[in-house]
Amino acid sequence: MTAVKSVADYIRTIADFPHEGIMFRDVTTLFADPRGMRLCVDQMLHPYAGEPIDKVVGLEARGFILGGAIAHQLGTGFVPIRKKGKLPGTVISEAYTLEYGEAIMEVHDDAIQPGERILLVDDLLATGGTAEAGIKLVERLGGVITGCAFIVDLPDLGGRKRLEGLGFDVHALVAYEGA
Amino acid sequence: MTAVKSVADYIRTIADFPHEGIMFRDVTTLFADPRGMRLCVDQMLHPYAGEPIDKVVGLEARGFILGGAIAHQLGTGFVPIRKKGKLPGTVISEAYTLEYGEAIMEVHDDAIQPGERILLVDDLLATGGTAEAGIKLVERLGGVITGCAFIVDLPDLGGRKRLEGLGFDVHALVAYEGA
Repeated sequence: MTAVKSVADYIRTIADFPHEGIMFRDVTTLFADPRGMRLCVDQMLHPYAGEPIDKVVGLEARGFILGGAIAHQLGTGFVPIRKKGKLPGTVISEAYTLEYGEAIMEVHDDAIQPGERILLVDDLLATGGTAEAGIKLVERLGGVITGCAFIVDLPDLGGRKRLEGLGFDVHALVAYEGA
Repeated sequence: MTAVKSVADYIRTIADFPHEGIMFRDVTTLFADPRGMRLCVDQMLHPYAGEPIDKVVGLEARGFILGGAIAHQLGTGFVPIRKKGKLPGTVISEAYTLEYGEAIMEVHDDAIQPGERILLVDDLLATGGTAEAGIKLVERLGGVITGCAFIVDLPDLGGRKRLEGLGFDVHALVAYEGA
């Protein structure tokens, strides 16, 4: 008999990426493992079992891997939220603040219908800036956020408090303190 | 009774994106529809039913959505091939030619083990440059390409001939002539 592994066991930490002093939580080792991938999808959906969800929205780019798998598991459609200029159709945009400067996220203006219940997914919750931009885009199209699900939470960066303070349901599988 | 829709019915064409004269085949409308998404994954896997596949490899970024869903369906792991500088661990790189200049794709050097059977997926096969870079990366790590599966093929751009000429199995769900 072998001990049951947790999602955290599949995540690897890489020091000093993308720059010195950052402990990067690398979920590619989780995705590359068949048991890790399945465990991650199952656990991310666990809080939403029995809840009606119409679409999964994922944030570029790691949120696409996760979002594709989760949408397939739920039998829903998937909607990508992308960096500026990547989507070919008519879009709406939201700017958000980065460590240096700002960036813009976009969604197709016909990708979500009013009243659709949306699960927003991404690999990592840090300051919550990208997630909040994603939430705003969904709500501007009339979508209703059922929940925001992440693999990794870095609570010291304040993202969870920020999103919960706005009244959203936030779930993450692994929290790293002191990040 | 309603007529059964095909994958092509869910794809929308947007003229002049990313620049004038290009008819962009937009698969986000396919992904956003629950029936479209399911049909696409089922049909992409149809040629490989019964074939052992160890990992799904997807090319950034639309190949991530598809790859996540397909890996989940197969119960395999998923490995992303990304643009230069995005992966945190030790990588190997392959340059490929674009319309103007060149670009570099990378994969983590421990993401594939020798002998693993790989299904490479992406949304679009055009010149085949990105796909060939992806194949080379997989093979340099000792992976064996079981097949290359795409949603859309633009045969006039030569990608299919190029990959088949190298001896690879290529499947696509929809071909647009004259692209």
